[in-house]
Amino acid sequence: MLKLTAEGCAARRQRLCAAVEADLFILTHPHHILYFSGVWLSSLSLGSAGAHALLIDRDGACALLTHAMMASQARGGFADEVVVYPSYSPEPPSLSSADPYGAFVGALNRQIEDRAAQTIGYERGGLPDGIAAVRRIDLNATLRALRRRKDDDELALIRQAVSAVEAGHAALRAAIRPGITEIDAFIAAQDAITRAISGPVHMLGDFVSGPRAEYVGGPPTTRALLPGDVMIADIFPVIAGYRADFTATIAVGGGLSAVQQRLDDALHDALAAGESVLRAGTRAADVYHAVRHALDTHGFGAHFPHHAGHGIGLGHPEPPYFVPDSDERLVAGDVVTLEPGAYGSGFAGRIEHNYLITETGAERLTNHVTRMAG
Amino acid sequence: MLKLTAEGCAARRQRLCAAVEADLFILTHPHHILYFSGVWLSSLSLGSAGAHALLIDRDGACALLTHAMMASQARGGFADEVVVYPSYSPEPPSLSSADPYGAFVGALNRQIEDRAAQTIGYERGGLPDGIAAVRRIDLNATLRALRRRKDDDELALIRQAVSAVEAGHAALRAAIRPGITEIDAFIAAQDAITRAISGPVHMLGDFVSGPRAEYVGGPPTTRALLPGDVMIADIFPVIAGYRADFTATIAVGGGLSAVQQRLDDALHDALAAGESVLRAGTRAADVYHAVRHALDTHGFGAHFPHHAGHGIGLGHPEPPYFVPDSDERLVAGDVVTLEPGAYGSGFAGRIEHNYLITETGAERLTNHVTRMAG
Repeated sequence: MLKLTAEGCAARRQRLCAAVEADLFILTHPHHILYFSGVWLSSLSLGSAGAHALLIDRDGACALLTHAMMASQARGGFADEVVVYPSYSPEPPSLSSADPYGAFVGALNRQIEDRAAQTIGYERGGLPDGIAAVRRIDLNATLRALRRRKDDDELALIRQAVSAVEAGHAALRAAIRPGITEIDAFIAAQDAITRAISGPVHMLGDFVSGPRAEYVGGPPTTRALLPGDVMIADIFPVIAGYRADFTATIAVGGGLSAVQQRLDDALHDALAAGESVLRAGTRAADVYHAVRHALDTHGFGAHFPHHAGHGIGLGHPEPPYFVPDSDERLVAGDVVTLEPGAYGSGFAGRIEHNYLITETGAERLTNHVTRMAG
Repeated sequence: MLKLTAEGCAARRQRLCAAVEADLFILTHPHHILYFSGVWLSSLSLGSAGAHALLIDRDGACALLTHAMMASQARGGFADEVVVYPSYSPEPPSLSSADPYGAFVGALNRQIEDRAAQTIGYERGGLPDGIAAVRRIDLNATLRALRRRKDDDELALIRQAVSAVEAGHAALRAAIRPGITEIDAFIAAQDAITRAISGPVHMLGDFVSGPRAEYVGGPPTTRALLPGDVMIADIFPVIAGYRADFTATIAVGGGLSAVQQRLDDALHDALAAGESVLRAGTRAADVYHAVRHALDTHGFGAHFPHHAGHGIGLGHPEPPYFVPDSDERLVAGDVVTLEPGAYGSGFAGRIEHNYLITETGAERLTNHVTRMAG
C-alpha cells in the first residue's frame, strides 16, 4: 500500500510555517497528523480513545505525542521524534494510568514549556483543554486552503484509491444479475477492492437498487435485484486515509426502459457539461449551474436534489462544493467529483467521475463504465 | 442489524444523572453519543470532520447537536430533539459556512444559555474550546465505571458481533490451505462477517502466518501459506459501534509439529486457568497471573509478551486490563477477553475467547474452534 512521502510531509510543514507566524503548531485531528507526518491514526483503530498531538516547530521539525498502543505505528511515519505519554500498554507490567487524558495534557504542557512557546497555531476545536495559557492562532482557514492543492504524494494515494475502486466497480458490474442481493453485489466490490489494495480497506458507499435507488443512497441490504431495476453503486472507501468517490448506475437484466435511456443520456450530457467548465478559476457555483442546466434541458432538473460534486482528499466531502451558494473558485491541484443524478417515481440514476483540476482544464482520474447498460 | 434500545439509552442517562450533580452534561465522543442516544456517528463517515454534541439535562432529556449531513442519522436515534447547526449541506442552495466549527460552538453556547446551566459535566478532552464560562465537572472516571456494567441492549450488540465473527472464523478455517494468501484468507472471513451482518462492517484484526506470526500481529499481506505454517487470526471488527474480539491459530496442511502440539496444549490449559478465576470480585492482576502461571508450567511463560486479556465494548481494549500492575477488580457485567499466546523462533500461537462476568463466574460468549488442527 502506498503511503505519503517524507518529502511531501516536510514540504507541507514548511508551507504551514511560511503561512502562519507561530512558535509552535499543535495538530490533533487524524487528518492533519497524517498530512504533516505520514502517520494515519484512524479513530477506529485499537486504542482509539487515546489522544495524540503533532507538534511542529517554526523550522518545520516535528514531534508526535502518542500512547503506547500507537507508538510503533507512529515510528513508521516521518515525525522527527515520537514521544510516548504514560497510558495503557498491553506489554506487562503495563504503563496504566487512571487518567490517560490527564497524562496526555501533562505531557503536552511539558512540550510547550520545553520550547518556551508563546504563540501556538491550533485547529479550532482540536486544542485540548487544560493546556498552558499562550497566545493562540486558529489555523482552520489556513489548513482548508493548504489542503486544496494536492501534492504528488497525496495524488499517488488518491490514484491508488481510484485504481482499487475501478476494480471494485468492474467486479460489481460483472456480478449484477437478477436474483443477486445488494449485499452480495457489495461483497463482490469489497473483495476486488481488498485484493487490489492487498489489505483491509474501510468500505463506504451507496448500494441501492429498485425503489431504494429513488431515495438517492444508503447501505446495501438483502434486497434481491429484479429485472428492470437499476442499482446505484457509489463507492467511496477510505484507503490509507485518502478517498476516491465515484458512481455508476447499472441496469439489471436486459435493455433499458424509455425513461432509463433518457436519464442515462441526460446524466452523460450533464457530466460533459460539468467537465467543460472544469479549470482553475471557474466559480464552484458555475460548475453546479452547468450540470443543472443540462439536466434542465433534458427535463430532469427538478429531480436533481443534491450538489453537482465536491472536493475529496483527506475529507469527503471537502471544499470546493459545487452548490449554488458557494463563493469558492477552482484552483489547480483541487481533486473534485462531478455527480449528476436524478430520482423520481419509476426512475433513478447517478454517475460520477473524479478529476484533478489544472490551470487549463482537468484530468479525469477515473475510468469505470458509467453507461447503465454498459 | 441490531441497535441499542430507547430504554437502554434512557436508563444510562438516568444513571449518569444519578451519579453526578450537574445542570447539563455535554458529551462529544462518538462512543458516548452512541451510549446515551443510540446514534453512531462514526468518525470515518461522510462529513466526519464535523462536530457533534449530545446535551443531557438533569432529568435525562437529551438533544443532539449535529450538522446537516448527519441529521437524518441523528433522527434515527433516541435523542428527544435534534438541533442542526449551519454547516455544509449537500442539498442546494446549501447551508455553507466558512467557519463550521465556529457555528458549532455558537450553537452549543446558545443551548447552554437557554438552559441557564451553571455546572456542566464533560469528558475531559471532549469539551470544545470557546464555550461559555461555567463550572465544569470531569466525567471521565464516572463514564469509565458506568461503561463496565453492560446493559442488555449492549450485550445484544456484542452477541451480534460475536455471532458474525464466529461465521468469519469458520469461513477462514475452511479456506486455510497451502498456497492461499493471507489476504485471501482475510477476504473469506470478511465475506462471511459481511453476510452475517447483511451490511458493511469495519474489519480490524491480525492475520499473520509463518514467520510473521512470531511477531504477534499485523494486517494480512500477499504471503502464501506453506505446509507446516500456522496462521494467527485475531478478528475484532467494529459492528454498530460495538466489538467482539477473538482468536484462533490454525495449522496449514496436515498435523502439528511437536512444539506446535505442546503450544496448543499450553494455550488451552492457560485459557482454562484464566477461566477458572473469572467472577465478580477477582483482581484483574490475578487473572493475568493465572494465565501466566499455566504458561510457565508448560515452559512458555517467557514467550508470553502481552496482556492476558482485557475488557471490550465500545472500546478495544477497555478496562479491566489483565496485566500485573492493574488494581482493578472484575464486576458483574464486564465483558472481557482471555488471550494466552506465545511466540518464539519456530513457534507462534494465540487463542482467545470472550466472556460475560457474573457474580458467580462467567458466561463464555464465543464458540469458535480454537484447536490448531481442529
